[in-house]
Amino acid sequence: MARPELQPVLDFLLVPTPQAWLEVATDRLDVLLIDHANCEKKAASTALALTYRYVGETELLHQMSRLAREELRHFEQVLDVMAQHEVTYQQLSSSRYAGELHKLVAKVEPERLVDQLVLGAVVEARSCERFIRLCEVLSGEMQALYQQLVNSEARHFQSYLELARTKWEGTQQAFDDKVQQFLEADAQLVTSPDPQFRFHSGVPG
Amino acid sequence: MARPELQPVLDFLLVPTPQAWLEVATDRLDVLLIDHANCEKKAASTALALTYRYVGETELLHQMSRLAREELRHFEQVLDVMAQHEVTYQQLSSSRYAGELHKLVAKVEPERLVDQLVLGAVVEARSCERFIRLCEVLSGEMQALYQQLVNSEARHFQSYLELARTKWEGTQQAFDDKVQQFLEADAQLVTSPDPQFRFHSGVPG
Repeated sequence: MARPELQPVLDFLLVPTPQAWLEVATDRLDVLLIDHANCEKKAASTALALTYRYVGETELLHQMSRLAREELRHFEQVLDVMAQHEVTYQQLSSSRYAGELHKLVAKVEPERLVDQLVLGAVVEARSCERFIRLCEVLSGEMQALYQQLVNSEARHFQSYLELARTKWEGTQQAFDDKVQQFLEADAQLVTSPDPQFRFHSGVPG
Repeated sequence: MARPELQPVLDFLLVPTPQAWLEVATDRLDVLLIDHANCEKKAASTALALTYRYVGETELLHQMSRLAREELRHFEQVLDVMAQHEVTYQQLSSSRYAGELHKLVAKVEPERLVDQLVLGAVVEARSCERFIRLCEVLSGEMQALYQQLVNSEARHFQSYLELARTKWEGTQQAFDDKVQQFLEADAQLVTSPDPQFRFHSGVPG
């Protein structure tokens, strides 16, 4: 990984993706692709949901709409690679990852918005890190796909984190503690045993 | 309206937008713009929702994803015009229009999918027709906005209708009857008195 522009993403996360996840991923490319397609749709839906709730936040509306468009473009790119690999798109249950992180989101505003943006930053950073790792072990169209997507996700991570910082009205220390809490949950979820293999799963059992 | 490429949209609908709606629209540009922004988001959400339910429909997935991206681009364009006109984006209740049309959608497959696509075609056609009418009475940035959007909505109407036809397994007559049912509901909703003024409302009371 000789790309210094990606270092902030790797530095942000507390732990790298375990080797065991990567080994299963390269064995189960069909599930990886289907769940990745689902994740792109979910990322678009999440960004879109924020545009419904926070109509007074003009900059957020623009950023979330652009981000949703970009995620949908990725969704279409994943569909193309699925077609090249003759992967049939089937319904797949979600991984535990996003649901568990959502449990940390405050129920009341203004903290709720900040938490959702921090969650967005962590998910984008983890996705980006997994793309980087996948590039190292995949080849052909799949490697090309993940190479293309790496830069977008790195940008999305920065956008979410900056927006969260802008909306936070507390101290810098409290903000850092909040981010740390989400990062610790991410680290626990990606390094602990997980009965399911998914794009954001832990170590497949 | 000397643009023959738009004639199919106008021929498709059973009735034109009443003059009384247009008069209120030009008087309440703030509500028009806010509800229009909401409609673009809703159009994107509706397309996205179809990509969750119908993962086996590859062509539909691609078309709906592209359509959602285009609607989000429109959303951003409406936001820009709102900023130019210093319109504050506030929460606004939905019009009765989409909800009433949804009541006609079958509860069971495969008819449910066809109905949703026909509904999409009717909503896009009505939106396009309103854009055409608005272009005739507005000026400046708002006229420019609606002129830009007219062609997209005309294309979306065609895409929805063609997809619906492809997925329909019954007779042509039964398909035409189904389309007619949605068109009659649309005609009734846009020509009858409506307590609310919205982008898709009836004649404002």
